[in-house]
Amino acid sequence: MAAFTTTVQVRFGHVDPAGIVYFPRIYDYIHEVFEEVWERHVDERYYKILSVDRVGFPLVHSEVDFKSPLRFGDRAQVDVTCFKLGRSSLGLRYRFSVDGRECVDARMVTACVDLATSKSFAMPERYRTAFEKIMEAA
Amino acid sequence: MAAFTTTVQVRFGHVDPAGIVYFPRIYDYIHEVFEEVWERHVDERYYKILSVDRVGFPLVHSEVDFKSPLRFGDRAQVDVTCFKLGRSSLGLRYRFSVDGRECVDARMVTACVDLATSKSFAMPERYRTAFEKIMEAA
Amino acid sequence: MAAFTTTVQVRFGHVDPAGIVYFPRIYDYIHEVFEEVWERHVDERYYKILSVDRVGFPLVHSEVDFKSPLRFGDRAQVDVTCFKLGRSSLGLRYRFSVDGRECVDARMVTACVDLATSKSFAMPERYRTAFEKIMEAA
Amino acid sequence: MAAFTTTVQVRFGHVDPAGIVYFPRIYDYIHEVFEEVWERHVDERYYKILSVDRVGFPLVHSEVDFKSPLRFGDRAQVDVTCFKLGRSSLGLRYRFSVDGRECVDARMVTACVDLATSKSFAMPERYRTAFEKIMEAA
Repeated sequence: MAAFTTTVQVRFGHVDPAGIVYFPRIYDYIHEVFEEVWERHVDERYYKILSVDRVGFPLVHSEVDFKSPLRFGDRAQVDVTCFKLGRSSLGLRYRFSVDGRECVDARMVTACVDLATSKSFAMPERYRTAFEKIMEAA
Repeated sequence: MAAFTTTVQVRFGHVDPAGIVYFPRIYDYIHEVFEEVWERHVDERYYKILSVDRVGFPLVHSEVDFKSPLRFGDRAQVDVTCFKLGRSSLGLRYRFSVDGRECVDARMVTACVDLATSKSFAMPERYRTAFEKIMEAA
Repeated sequence: MAAFTTTVQVRFGHVDPAGIVYFPRIYDYIHEVFEEVWERHVDERYYKILSVDRVGFPLVHSEVDFKSPLRFGDRAQVDVTCFKLGRSSLGLRYRFSVDGRECVDARMVTACVDLATSKSFAMPERYRTAFEKIMEAA
Repeated sequence: MAAFTTTVQVRFGHVDPAGIVYFPRIYDYIHEVFEEVWERHVDERYYKILSVDRVGFPLVHSEVDFKSPLRFGDRAQVDVTCFKLGRSSLGLRYRFSVDGRECVDARMVTACVDLATSKSFAMPERYRTAFEKIMEAA
């Protein structure tokens, strides 16, 4: 299955006194990877989409399994696939692993919203085409 | 139904260029409320549990619905109830609302882990008793 | 000397693997206290100043001494005084202490800026009056 | 003058409702660049220094000029030089610029501390040699 793949580095300030990544930081990683999906896979600068096109992607639903801890110094591989592609809604799955060990499996559903009206609208076709390329098998 | 209730204030630095709370911050709020549940409902200082008792609560699963946005200046009410109380696992539900408008409905399952061995163990009875008081009806 | 005083609680997620507050979080605390100065001392809701009055306070200069560490579980007292009150510029000093032990001594200078034009302008008199009340002795 | 140079990308979640980087995030950038200095200039993995060698670098003093704003989408160049190299203390200067426009000029002094005893100690010679290479002219 095709996936968009990138890496995330666990930094000093991301780790909590229990020695593992403070979990809200994982959502921060997910958003950073989301921005990279736009920039490197869809080939749109994310800041342009928001600032110029005035399109936003508010999160609607999130479901995450934390399978094993991410620790300070880890470089995690993140594989992104698409599990839902509705008219306006987009479901992306982010799987984090370190040396083949599964760490995080996250499914995030966002809407595609006109920031001027706060209404959802149909995702443009060129975005849709990009996400179809990383669609999970049915 | 009994719930533990507290409030969260949306600060300037929590809000993103789209004018709503940057969603990873919501997980930060959830952890702050989790700490308050320990301090004010269970009556244990959270830092003592981790630093002295050496017990941690790693997140195992998270499922969150984002129903309407939290905005800069909002003071959200958060109602916490318990929806799962296993031998070692604890499921808490956090409902955020602003003036009666539902914003976030989050279900977070944590394990109870001995930080020395990284093994889960049965939650002490006095913790269990406190969580039973905010148990959701079956 | 008159000061505005509040408290800050060091949370789990604020602490790094070395066991002390990850220092960027201290600037987060400072901004939270800055918001409280507006809300409780100047008696203006900070979100209203930004969102309705469209006035911002970009940081111009910051100078901070880190005297002793803030640790997980600490409740720090923060005393705020004013050391500079120019036409548009405001210098506030934040001293953090835990049980009388000095932890952080921060001096932050902000400008008062019209967000529509990005130009600085003379601070309104009612703000000036509030800051004069916590002015440090010459 | 020799400098260690890297880049920082301003992400969506780093920007505040006034449209510029929320300033505590700038200190987060500084720490990320500090980690890169260790990994790519000194050639030591930062997590190893802390976790294995048990050496920490608490911040002692920070002085920062904010010259012009960093905005969403900016890729800032960061030039790092050394302005102080004492027995145990290290002063690094971080200059952020976007397309030649100066944004942030930060001077950060850290101590070199044995995490087991919390005492400062003389920086190892191989570290010192690396920092001498990016020393500012007297």
